[in-house]
Parts: sequence; C-alpha cells; structure tokens
Amino acid sequence: MDKQGVFREAKSWVLEAGKHIRDNINEPLHIETKSNADDLVTQMDQETEEFFADRIRSTYPSHRVFGEEGFGDDVRDLDGIVWIVDPIDGTMNFVHQQKNFAISIGIYEDGIGEIGIIYDVMEDVLYTAVKGEGAYRNGEPLPEVLKNRPLEKSIFSLNTTWLLEENRRVEAEGIRELVKTLRSTRSYGSAALEFAFVAEGLLDGYVTMSLMPWDVAAGKVILEEVGGVVTAGNGSELSMVDRSSVCATRANIHDEVVKGYIRLK
Amino acid sequence: MDKQGVFREAKSWVLEAGKHIRDNINEPLHIETKSNADDLVTQMDQETEEFFADRIRSTYPSHRVFGEEGFGDDVRDLDGIVWIVDPIDGTMNFVHQQKNFAISIGIYEDGIGEIGIIYDVMEDVLYTAVKGEGAYRNGEPLPEVLKNRPLEKSIFSLNTTWLLEENRRVEAEGIRELVKTLRSTRSYGSAALEFAFVAEGLLDGYVTMSLMPWDVAAGKVILEEVGGVVTAGNGSELSMVDRSSVCATRANIHDEVVKGYIRLK
Repeated sequence: MDKQGVFREAKSWVLEAGKHIRDNINEPLHIETKSNADDLVTQMDQETEEFFADRIRSTYPSHRVFGEEGFGDDVRDLDGIVWIVDPIDGTMNFVHQQKNFAISIGIYEDGIGEIGIIYDVMEDVLYTAVKGEGAYRNGEPLPEVLKNRPLEKSIFSLNTTWLLEENRRVEAEGIRELVKTLRSTRSYGSAALEFAFVAEGLLDGYVTMSLMPWDVAAGKVILEEVGGVVTAGNGSELSMVDRSSVCATRANIHDEVVKGYIRLK
Repeated sequence: MDKQGVFREAKSWVLEAGKHIRDNINEPLHIETKSNADDLVTQMDQETEEFFADRIRSTYPSHRVFGEEGFGDDVRDLDGIVWIVDPIDGTMNFVHQQKNFAISIGIYEDGIGEIGIIYDVMEDVLYTAVKGEGAYRNGEPLPEVLKNRPLEKSIFSLNTTWLLEENRRVEAEGIRELVKTLRSTRSYGSAALEFAFVAEGLLDGYVTMSLMPWDVAAGKVILEEVGGVVTAGNGSELSMVDRSSVCATRANIHDEVVKGYIRLK
C-alpha cells in the first residue's frame, strides 16, 4: 500500500465529510433506532458512510470497506486492505448535543493497523497516525503518554453501565474496585474521542466492555503510536472483526487493570 | 444592588482572570492536596480567588466574599450581598487536562441568586444570567430547556462514585436504577460546566451528592433562567452555605428523579 498516498486521500475525505456534517448540523434529523431504543442512527450516519464507501471503491477498487451502517462489504477477516469506518462515532451525542462526535477511520493491511484518523467534527480537531510515524493532533506531534503515573493518580473514561450487576459483559464488582482505586472517572460518549483523549494525555485510560471494530480501529493505531496499550478486557489481542471489550491505557498500568480489575463474564 | 453595574464589573473580572489563566496554562503547577489525595488545589486557584477577593473588596466594600480557597469572609448566612466564588471549578481537570474547567461566580442578595457567571476558560465560552432576564452563552440567548422529553430519553451527568455502595451520601441502589432508566450518562468533571451543559440542552440533568455552594451558586441562577429546577437531592431547597447533594434537571423530570431514585443516607 502507498501509505502516504492513502493517508492523504483518507484525510481529505474525512475533512470534506466533516465540513458537510457541520454545514448541515442544524437541519432536522431523521432518527431511527437499531438494536434497542437507545441505539440511534440518523440519515447523516448513513449518508456519510455511503460517501466514504463510494470514494474508497472508486479510488481503490481492491480495498474493502467495513462499516457500521451497511454500505460496506461483508467483512469476516482482515485479509488485504480494509477500511474500518465509523461515519459518526457518538451518534447519541450527535443527536442530543450536536457536538462531541467524531468520524473514525482505521485502515488495516493484513490485520495490521497502518493508518488511524479521528476527526472531532464540531471542534475541527483532527487526530492522525501512520504506523511507525507518531501521532498528531491538527498536525502537531503528540508526545508519548506518561510512563510513571500510578493507577491511584489516574483518570479513566468509564461509563456507569459497567458498574451495574445486570450488565452482560463484566463483573461489576471488579469495575467498582477499579473506580475506588482510580483518582476519578469521566465519560464523554464517543469511543473514538475517548481513545483520542487518552492519546492526548487528557485521560490515562479508557475501559469499556462492548465496542465494534469501527469504534476502535483508528483509536488503536493512534494510541499505540504514543506508547499506549490496547487490548480486549482480558488482555488478549483486540478483535477487528467482532464485538469486543476494550482496555486502552498508558503502558505502565495496563497489566494491573487487566489482571486486577476486569473479569469478563 | 445595581444589578447591571455589578454584572458588568463581575463579567469583566472573570474575563480578565480567565485570560491570566490561559496565558499561564503551560507554567509548572504547584499542586497541593486538601481533604484527601484526590482533592487538589493549585497556586492558580489561590491566586485567582485572591484576585477576585481584592477586586470585590476595593470596589464593593459592603459585599462579602464566600470562596473555596480562604481569601473570602467567614460566611455563615447569606444576609446582604454575597459573591460566591469558585476560582477554578474542576481543579482536577485543570491539573490533568489543562482544559474543561471554569470560573464560577454567583452573586446572591439576601439569599436570592441575582447573577450567575460561568466561564469555560480554555474554550472561551461565557455563560451568564441575571435573574429574570434569561441566560446567555457568549451573549446569545439560550432557549428554554425541553419540557417534554421523558426520563427514558434523557442523558444525565452522573459520576461513577454514586454507584458505589460505600459512598457516604446516597443509596447506590437507587442511583443504579436511575442509570438503568436513563438513556445514558456522561461525566465531565466540572460541576459548573455540568450545570452550564444542562442549561444549554447538552444534558437533561446533573445529579451529584456532594457539592459546596461555590460549585453550584452560578449554575443554579443560569439553569433556573431557562426553566431548569435545582434542589438538594431530596427535593428540598439547596443550601448556599453548606455542603449539599444536588439534583439539577429539566422541570418535567425533576420530581420523578427526586422521589423515585435519590435516597439520601
């Protein structure tokens, strides 16, 4: 793959799609629900994914597209080059807040994340990484994440859902112990932005129990470029074809979180 | 009180203090802890409160100052005119993120909140209200908050702390039921900004169990101007001299939250 060429192209499409979303942010939304009443999708999610699928297919006919809204291919493996696309990550924020959502694109070659792009559309902040070349925020290099801050002084993004006994994914008791150990928690409602915030050093970790590949594909590439570690909740390699739990933190605390606090159901 | 005059003066001081903080955001911090290892305070909190206390006393010698960092008066009642000042609300964000914190000033006369100012320093967003004259965001009027959205479609700011059995303030079981009922939760780490976000319609409510008057004084004035309701967690009037629980929501869901979910210990 011509990584630099693909990266430039992908970046320009993301900025173009972002501008289209901004220009139409005050238009009435057509909101539907998917798996449940709180799983929202809008016409804008669909239009934006279709825009990417069309561009990718016409420019790179050999690449495949793996997306949330169904305009992509039926992807069951990561052979070759796969664009993993979330047209609007944080759709609930998009609907309720008209901000705090992102376009997220990870480009993988034979399973290896080569390019990550996360675009905070309303703030006009672009996080990017090409594997091996560092991560950037609006073109400025992001420094390595901290290496020594202990868990007791760390702030994680962690949603209240995972503290409920009834959740189907993780033992709530372990997550509650994690909350007690941490300095504090936050929750922003966009997985892509939460990855970006860990990469930027605003957060020390992001722990969540149910993400799809398009929620994490770009974030993993970006965070790993600044010394973060991204795995499933049990420490195993993150799936990029199926739903997975996620533990994304600075390197020095990753083992401690995975082994000491996250007990998957 | 000459409300318009005091408001203009307060606003100009807030903007001046905010600029000073922005100009020095990359200076090394002198961080201390207060009640516990996670209760942070910096030299900047102290300098900023001292700035406000000096300005208020020299301009309005009859007004009292009630602040977090001890440069104010020993305030035990709200007789007369009292400036309730949080120089940096969200000190942990200030330290860890260098953003997502606010200056918060509420000006009360004989216990009535007459002026509220919240300044998101790094975003340069100023939320203001003068009682009876509506609330504004950077000078643009904020519309009334929604009147009909049900709790099931609401997003609250709610920190994970209140889902832990061990918390000293509220029955965790009720808060967990609230989480299950809500569409979703967020947590931003600055009470003042969380109030502002409810007023702005980004959130439908903010529930927390332990705030001091300076965390809420401005937010209450601003949120009430757009039809929000702000009480203690049990529905009683919010104390402006002591620590209190807080339930701040759109009007139509307030009773339901207070009566159905919040059981103070």
